[in-house]
Amino acid sequence: MLSIRPATVNDAGLLVTLIRELAEYEKELDAVTITAAQLARDGFGDRPAFRALIAEWDAQPAGYALFTDFYSTWTGRQLFLEDLFVRPVFRGKGIGKKLMAEVAAIARKEQCIAMRWEVLGWNQSAIDVYQALGAEFLDGWRLMMLRNQPLRQLAETR
Amino acid sequence: MLSIRPATVNDAGLLVTLIRELAEYEKELDAVTITAAQLARDGFGDRPAFRALIAEWDAQPAGYALFTDFYSTWTGRQLFLEDLFVRPVFRGKGIGKKLMAEVAAIARKEQCIAMRWEVLGWNQSAIDVYQALGAEFLDGWRLMMLRNQPLRQLAETR
Repeated sequence: MLSIRPATVNDAGLLVTLIRELAEYEKELDAVTITAAQLARDGFGDRPAFRALIAEWDAQPAGYALFTDFYSTWTGRQLFLEDLFVRPVFRGKGIGKKLMAEVAAIARKEQCIAMRWEVLGWNQSAIDVYQALGAEFLDGWRLMMLRNQPLRQLAETR
Repeated sequence: MLSIRPATVNDAGLLVTLIRELAEYEKELDAVTITAAQLARDGFGDRPAFRALIAEWDAQPAGYALFTDFYSTWTGRQLFLEDLFVRPVFRGKGIGKKLMAEVAAIARKEQCIAMRWEVLGWNQSAIDVYQALGAEFLDGWRLMMLRNQPLRQLAETR
């Protein structure tokens, strides 16, 4: 039996576990430094930086969705789905789609015109699911990031 | 003389003008439906969905940067630079870089580990500027979006 509930601050440790499982699947575990204390502070205080949903199957943690507000200057409010993950042993039960549907319902309720996310180009099974739902690629755009020493240097030129 | 200031609700109309000029440069003007009323409501109320900086050259509006909070489940808080634009007649004065530096300084002040943005793959002059600042491409990821009828349909399956 599937149930989906909003994450609370008590889920910060569980979220770190699930985030690390997802990153391992994405072959990016080395890039993960997040801690339960960080998630507790950033997601469950006065101005939460994200919201998360926990999926449970027979009361066992089976997956999660984590999303943030997003703003498009072309069209206005959207939601950004940062993470969607179902643990391997719980796959094939429609849990990922139910998590997506919950986020979609929140988007609609909050008058967001769209939800968006990023998918790894090699993750064809995920792409197939998303395209079956009617999702579109926004190709043509490339993601860039500035961090560490270059970020500090630029900030100091202001 | 350059000055950079935070946008206020009185800039909503100016921001629409500048957003439309940027979208025209990006050959995407048809995709823009945003209005000054939407920007005023979404950016300058109780829980602003974005922040913006206006660059003025000799008191003339010369460009803008518009950014939002972003959250990485790998590393924590970041800023997302949604738009950066300098009007053609004001280019070559370092205004874009100064706007980026202001956003970088805000990112540092707010303990964000990084700032990120999307660039059009054909916009080589922008890519050159970003790479000279030490920005990295996060290739391998593809952007997807769900909107309109597919978003409504998915929301209804919850």
